[in-house]
Amino acid sequence: MPDDFETIEWTHDGAVRLIDQTRLPLDEVYVVCASADEVARAIRTMQVRGAPAIGIAAAMGLAMAARTIHAPTFAAFYAGLEDIGASLMRTRPTAVNLAWAIRRLLRVTQGLQTVPLAEIPDRLTAEATAMRAEDISIHRAIGKYGHELGPHPARILTHCNAGGLATAGYGTAVGVIRAAAEAGKHIKVWVDETRPLLQGARLTAWELSRAGIPATLITDNMAGHFMYRGEVDFVVVGADRIARNGDTANKIGTYGVAVLARAHGIPFYVAAPLSTLDLSLHTGAEIPIEERAPEEVTEIGGRRVAPSGIRAANPAFDVTPASYIDGIITERGVARAPYDESLPRLAGDA
Amino acid sequence: MPDDFETIEWTHDGAVRLIDQTRLPLDEVYVVCASADEVARAIRTMQVRGAPAIGIAAAMGLAMAARTIHAPTFAAFYAGLEDIGASLMRTRPTAVNLAWAIRRLLRVTQGLQTVPLAEIPDRLTAEATAMRAEDISIHRAIGKYGHELGPHPARILTHCNAGGLATAGYGTAVGVIRAAAEAGKHIKVWVDETRPLLQGARLTAWELSRAGIPATLITDNMAGHFMYRGEVDFVVVGADRIARNGDTANKIGTYGVAVLARAHGIPFYVAAPLSTLDLSLHTGAEIPIEERAPEEVTEIGGRRVAPSGIRAANPAFDVTPASYIDGIITERGVARAPYDESLPRLAGDA
Repeated sequence: MPDDFETIEWTHDGAVRLIDQTRLPLDEVYVVCASADEVARAIRTMQVRGAPAIGIAAAMGLAMAARTIHAPTFAAFYAGLEDIGASLMRTRPTAVNLAWAIRRLLRVTQGLQTVPLAEIPDRLTAEATAMRAEDISIHRAIGKYGHELGPHPARILTHCNAGGLATAGYGTAVGVIRAAAEAGKHIKVWVDETRPLLQGARLTAWELSRAGIPATLITDNMAGHFMYRGEVDFVVVGADRIARNGDTANKIGTYGVAVLARAHGIPFYVAAPLSTLDLSLHTGAEIPIEERAPEEVTEIGGRRVAPSGIRAANPAFDVTPASYIDGIITERGVARAPYDESLPRLAGDA
Repeated sequence: MPDDFETIEWTHDGAVRLIDQTRLPLDEVYVVCASADEVARAIRTMQVRGAPAIGIAAAMGLAMAARTIHAPTFAAFYAGLEDIGASLMRTRPTAVNLAWAIRRLLRVTQGLQTVPLAEIPDRLTAEATAMRAEDISIHRAIGKYGHELGPHPARILTHCNAGGLATAGYGTAVGVIRAAAEAGKHIKVWVDETRPLLQGARLTAWELSRAGIPATLITDNMAGHFMYRGEVDFVVVGADRIARNGDTANKIGTYGVAVLARAHGIPFYVAAPLSTLDLSLHTGAEIPIEERAPEEVTEIGGRRVAPSGIRAANPAFDVTPASYIDGIITERGVARAPYDESLPRLAGDA
C-alpha cells in the first residue's frame, strides 16, 4: 500500500516539486520551487509541513541552492551554504528535523574540502536524494515496529497528519496504520480534524481514503466521547521534537488526547524518526513553541468566524510529558521509559 | 451589565422574534416566527439554541399557536395544544428544558378548564411571558451563586455558549462570568471555539466582547495546553440535561474539558436552571444524544474541508459523569455530590 502521490521530489531539471498541502483535499496541485527562498516560503506557508517532510524539503532546497553559490574558495562556498541553511532553519522553530537536515548537509560538505568546488553541488544533491529515500525506508521500519504493538482488530485514533504528506512518503503515525492494514489487520481509524489548520480533515482523511483504509472524521472535541464509549483501542501520533527525557512536542491538541487516553487506559504512542530527537534538551520545557497568526483561529478558509476585535491564541504545538507516552516508535525499535536511557541508546549516543 | 440584545421576545403583534444565532457574529439579524411550525423550524436549524432558550421559545411558540386552535370544547382545545406541543418537542431530543416548558404550559392549561375557552390563549401568553422573565431572574441567581465559587482574579474557561443567547438573557455559565465581572472581579475568559458549529467563537466571543469582558478565543484542542501551563483557574459550562445522579449532557467536548480539568486540579462546575434536571433518569446513560448531519463536520460555512466520501461522526452532545463535576450551580444554590440527594432536595422533589 504505497502512497499514490509524491509529497516532495526533484523535477527533471533539478528544482523541488511539492504537493501543495494548503490546497488539499479540494485541489491536487503542485508547486515547483526553483530557489532556496521559494522552498523557505513553501515551508513557512505550510505548503509543505510535517517535521520529516520539512527536513527533506530543506535538504533538497539547500542542495539546489548550492549550485547558485559562486565562490572562489571552499571557505567562501561553505559560508554561503551556511547562510542559506540558516535562512531555511528560521522558517519554523519547533520541528528539529529542519535543523537536523541542514546540519547533515553542512557536515557532508565539511568532508568535501579536497573535492573540486564545482563537484560539490552534485554531491549535495546526491546526499539530499539519499536522505529522501532513507526517509521513506525509515518510515516503513517505524510502521513495522508500530503495528506490532497494536491490537487486532483495532480502532486507532490519530491527531493531525503524521502521514505520507508529513514525510517523504508512507508516514509516521499513518505509517503504523498503513503497515497494520498491509499486514491484513482490520483497522478503523478515528481522524481528529485538528483545528486550526485542519490537517486531519484535509490531509489524513485524504490519505486514508486513497489508501482504502476505513476512517471516520471527528472534531477534536469528540475524542473523549468515543474513548468513554470504549470505541478507541489505540492512539498513535507523530512528533515535531522529542527531548532527551521523552517529552514530545507535536501539533496542538496532542497533549489533550494523551491525557484522555490515560484516563481511559488506552495505549498512547508517538511514532517518529530518530531525526526528531533533540538530545541537547533535557525536558520539553526547553522546546520552542511556534505561535502562529491569530487569524488561523478567527478565520476559516478566509472567512471570519469570530467577532472582530476578539483576541485569539494560536500555539501551533504543545508538549506531551513523557509520563503520558507508552512508547516512542522509531526506525530502530520502540523506546520505553526511562526515555533518557532508551532514546540515547537507540540514537547511538548513549 | 445586562445584555444589550434580546435573544427572544414578543413582537408588538404577538409573534415571536428571535436573534438569528446562525448568522452571528457577522450579521445581527432577527427572525420573526408567526406560527408554531416556524418556531419549530428555528429550533431545529439552531437559529435559536441553548437549552433554556429553546424552552422559552417553545413556550412562547405554543402560547402563540393556542390562538389558532378553534375547538368547540376544552378537551378538543387541549388535544390540539398537546399535538402542537409534541411537534415542538420533537425538534431536538437532548435538552430537557424543551419538554419541561411544554409540560408547564399544558399543566397550566389543565387548571383553566372552568375558564371560557376564548380567554385561554391570553392566559397562556401571560404564562409564557412570565417564564421568560423568570428565566432571566433565574440566571441572575445562578450568576450570584456561581461567582462566589470562583477565585479572584480568575481565568475562567468555558465551552460552547451558555450565555444570554442560550437563555432568555444573562446566561448560565456566562451569567456566572457576568456576575463576577459585575462584582468587580478581574476576570479573563478562555473561550473554546466549540466545533463543529463554533458557538464559542461566534456567540460567546460576541457576547463577552459586547459586555466588555476580556476574552481569548482558542480552538478546543488548546484547552489542555493552557491548563498545563497553569493559565486556567476555573471551568464553568452549561447543561442540556442533568440526570438524577448528576451526570450531565452538554455540548460535545464538555466531557474532554472535564477530564482535563480534573487532571490539572482545576474546579469544574456546571451552571443550569433546575428546569434542566431530569429526575426521571437515574444516570446519564439514559440521556438521548442527538446525532446531527455529518456535513456540519465535513463543511465549514458551506465550504467543504474534507475529501468527498469520508465518513464523519457528529454527536451534538456528550455526557460528563457526575464524578468529574465539583458542583452544579442552580438558582436555588450549588448542588454537591452525592447529587442524587442534593438535586432532588433543591428541586423540591426529595
